[in-house]
Amino acid sequence: MNNPYNTDLDRNPANYQPLTPLNFLERAASVFPDHTAIVHGELRRSYAAFYARSRQLASALAQKGIGRGDTVSALLANTPPMLECHYGVPMCGAVLHSINTRLDASIIAFQLDHAMSKVVIVDREFMPLLQEALTIAKVSPVLIQYDDPEFDGPPTSVQTTDYEEFLTGGDPDFAWLMPEDEWDAISINYTSGTTGDPKGVVSHHRGAYLLAQGNALTTGMLKHAVYLWTLPMFHCNGWCFPWTLSAIIGTHVCLRQVRAEPIWNALADEGVTHLCGAPIVMSLMISAPKDVQRDLNRTVQFFTAAAPPPEKLLADMRDAGFDVTHLYGLTETYGPAVVNDWHDAWSCLPRAEQAALKSRQGVRYLPLEQLDVLDPDTMRAVPRDGKTMGEVMFRGNVVMKGYFRNPKATNEAFKGGWFHSGDLGVIHPDGYIQLKDRSKDVIISGGENISSIEVEEALYRHPAVAVVAVVAMPHEKWGETPCAFVELAEGQTADAQALRAWCREHLASYKVPGQFVFMTIPRTSTGKIQKFLLRDAARELSAGQPDALAPTIGTK
Amino acid sequence: MNNPYNTDLDRNPANYQPLTPLNFLERAASVFPDHTAIVHGELRRSYAAFYARSRQLASALAQKGIGRGDTVSALLANTPPMLECHYGVPMCGAVLHSINTRLDASIIAFQLDHAMSKVVIVDREFMPLLQEALTIAKVSPVLIQYDDPEFDGPPTSVQTTDYEEFLTGGDPDFAWLMPEDEWDAISINYTSGTTGDPKGVVSHHRGAYLLAQGNALTTGMLKHAVYLWTLPMFHCNGWCFPWTLSAIIGTHVCLRQVRAEPIWNALADEGVTHLCGAPIVMSLMISAPKDVQRDLNRTVQFFTAAAPPPEKLLADMRDAGFDVTHLYGLTETYGPAVVNDWHDAWSCLPRAEQAALKSRQGVRYLPLEQLDVLDPDTMRAVPRDGKTMGEVMFRGNVVMKGYFRNPKATNEAFKGGWFHSGDLGVIHPDGYIQLKDRSKDVIISGGENISSIEVEEALYRHPAVAVVAVVAMPHEKWGETPCAFVELAEGQTADAQALRAWCREHLASYKVPGQFVFMTIPRTSTGKIQKFLLRDAARELSAGQPDALAPTIGTK
Repeated sequence: MNNPYNTDLDRNPANYQPLTPLNFLERAASVFPDHTAIVHGELRRSYAAFYARSRQLASALAQKGIGRGDTVSALLANTPPMLECHYGVPMCGAVLHSINTRLDASIIAFQLDHAMSKVVIVDREFMPLLQEALTIAKVSPVLIQYDDPEFDGPPTSVQTTDYEEFLTGGDPDFAWLMPEDEWDAISINYTSGTTGDPKGVVSHHRGAYLLAQGNALTTGMLKHAVYLWTLPMFHCNGWCFPWTLSAIIGTHVCLRQVRAEPIWNALADEGVTHLCGAPIVMSLMISAPKDVQRDLNRTVQFFTAAAPPPEKLLADMRDAGFDVTHLYGLTETYGPAVVNDWHDAWSCLPRAEQAALKSRQGVRYLPLEQLDVLDPDTMRAVPRDGKTMGEVMFRGNVVMKGYFRNPKATNEAFKGGWFHSGDLGVIHPDGYIQLKDRSKDVIISGGENISSIEVEEALYRHPAVAVVAVVAMPHEKWGETPCAFVELAEGQTADAQALRAWCREHLASYKVPGQFVFMTIPRTSTGKIQKFLLRDAARELSAGQPDALAPTIGTK
Repeated sequence: MNNPYNTDLDRNPANYQPLTPLNFLERAASVFPDHTAIVHGELRRSYAAFYARSRQLASALAQKGIGRGDTVSALLANTPPMLECHYGVPMCGAVLHSINTRLDASIIAFQLDHAMSKVVIVDREFMPLLQEALTIAKVSPVLIQYDDPEFDGPPTSVQTTDYEEFLTGGDPDFAWLMPEDEWDAISINYTSGTTGDPKGVVSHHRGAYLLAQGNALTTGMLKHAVYLWTLPMFHCNGWCFPWTLSAIIGTHVCLRQVRAEPIWNALADEGVTHLCGAPIVMSLMISAPKDVQRDLNRTVQFFTAAAPPPEKLLADMRDAGFDVTHLYGLTETYGPAVVNDWHDAWSCLPRAEQAALKSRQGVRYLPLEQLDVLDPDTMRAVPRDGKTMGEVMFRGNVVMKGYFRNPKATNEAFKGGWFHSGDLGVIHPDGYIQLKDRSKDVIISGGENISSIEVEEALYRHPAVAVVAVVAMPHEKWGETPCAFVELAEGQTADAQALRAWCREHLASYKVPGQFVFMTIPRTSTGKIQKFLLRDAARELSAGQPDALAPTIGTK
């Protein structure tokens, strides 16, 4: 017999619509048209204006012939047009390609070609970079330049369409396009792979809708929350927060540059309730001069990822009025899909234990269906003992569609019905996962695996160490040995001998770094330490070519 | 050219899973196993136990041969088994059929037959009712009786499987069934139609997942919120809150009976943050003796539906520490799909204006894609003038699959690609809808349409009126005339003459009720006024048979 519950009960336009976060903005603009959607310097823009401008953008793009399956690139800072792109570009059916503004011209050129970009919306500040990229790229996209009044750099000489003018040509009542299917692409973000060409991660409307709501639930965002943009929006679509805020009719506070003073001012003056960023953002805030720091008189939610927040930083943040939550995810999972979901009882533990618990990446977001640590060879879950290493794998609706025009990489990533993150970790008895290392960061010394994170954690506990990164250095006898790159805390001193003695006290002897290098550690625009640069440096150091470090040392 | 974003980027087990709220419980139990999921009298049950028992229920049902496409009925009060049914029944692939415990045996029999019920899980209190229904019904479902320690009524003589015993036979580690498709049915709820046979509204996993999250976002439920069950769970699956609470790892506080004392005690002793109910629940709380009312020292969120909350009640609730939000929806929309989304600025208006604004049903929930007031003949939206009447219509993912085994009613309900609610209303210039009447409640007098709600609102403003319901009474000359049924406020007096004079002052003369009847107004178990009984009564009154009222008058 047929299942009677599947008989004469089909989908129809009344009971089925593709899930898309674009609807969040339509709702916000219709219900709270006058609520402030965007703050940018002196600018205050309402939801009605935000929606109208996004539709103008969609309309103007459609007039240029842009539609379904086309790529529109954005090379923008955290400014209002970047938010408008998150709605206006998919509203004409196109796919948003956000470009990391710190990338080399050659990588940008690769992305533009690979994504077959038709249009680039570019901030005046990055026009020279784009021009350089376009001399390399094969595509010839239409350029639209945003001249941000908050940018005080020199003008560019390039004659091109102005963003505001371009919008003026669009219809604010444009009948924007719903996706034909919720599986349709909404954005593409290229991962900064350490080897091989960058891969274009394709996200769809369904996943963006679900993760955007997952953010609100996970971060406890109530109606009219105020979000400060310390996280770059070009970083996996700002973890989907450009869409989350419309769902809860919140306010975006834009920020061109991550500097302590505007951050503290926004926190105090705009009533910011939530912000995200790598630990470096917290360091920046906490190390700001006392007259820059402002009194908040309330608890602000800070969400961090990329690296476990060090104990001292957590304590300082707590004292300054922040509740810090540790998130984890990848571009392939729409940003954060894992949360260190805190237990109230843990707050009564000693600070060091709290920091240890907080350093764990945690458990799945609500819209992620499965998260586990598997042996990639057998595809079996490792024991939940907090010790056995395996590969962190994801499964669910907030995992990417796949890599653009790269079926080989897509198939590899989805081998065995799970998304392989490439991150190595353990799973604790309580089900919380903890990264132990990226596969490529494991140091193999005398046949023993050394977790670079473990060595880093030992060094972080030394009072003089502000930032540390440990990588493999080739070694004649052992194959590899750990090499530690260290940034000292302000006003502190320590030499290699002192740190080596410290490590001997806290680590098995084979894990003690063979070399300590004191320098400013190179980071990506999102605050991630660029270990591949350090690995190069370590290689050259071991070969007796310490010059390799010179360009990095000078970057502070 | 093919859309490159739809090439080699297909669904697979790693990136696509059916949406289902069942996963919320799995997550809650795995991340917060020891957190209290359910409070019922002295009982405290953790999420680990809640999940294990739900799996035992699924397993035990599967052992009885219950699976996909089968119906399992529940005739239960707001008790832990009712929560377990919301997970355990769909976890074996079956569909949950919750029965309103206040229904007549004949209607229950109709539902059991129509749903082809295989199992009924029944509270001891309702066993006699079920036995009566089964003498009428054609189906012979397996009976499982829950003997609630909180129920102090007489034992039943029926020999049948005990719920706890039944669970013992189930496997707490049962590999429960995910839906094969998120469009699969999760529940069926029969509407208490005023004419014709009840219709079985079929809900699916996708809609339940989305509305459950929509509830959390709409009601501002943060992690570990505490929810008091003043709303019957048999009423559209408790508006999906049985699933919402698992999403935010909250606590259910069960309640067998809606009485003032246990409500106030739960509010104060269990730290309740949210509760729902018809205005009658608020009246009950506010009119409780002072020594029953407890001091809360915080704001509790109260969500009401069914009827606009009267001004005085709103003021009293505010003074008692409640923030009241008006919701609206139907069984066909999973419960509430419309919210009177409050603007901060409105809180500065005079109380009467606030009450007027709060009486509007409002705007769409986030997971509802479209809500409008349309002319059902032309299917065109009525002007947004707050005056032109039309039919309230819904469109989106939280609209039912359709009516079970009733393609005719399904097709009618979805005519023109919208779900026709049968409710008449207007849409205000700001997009907020307001119900003016159910189609069937319009009174047509001398060719003029009279909104019974308008007459009721006028009477509600009279200080002596506690509850009023206006229906059509047949009239020789005018066809119909309004007939008002009135419950006076305690200690107040007013007669028909006084109320008629009041109406003449506040209403057009043709809208003044031809008759006033002072009596206890019959309500459904969910607090909805049973207008169909009143219509019968009015009909018999006009025919000179006032005896029809006798049984109702005696029910208080």
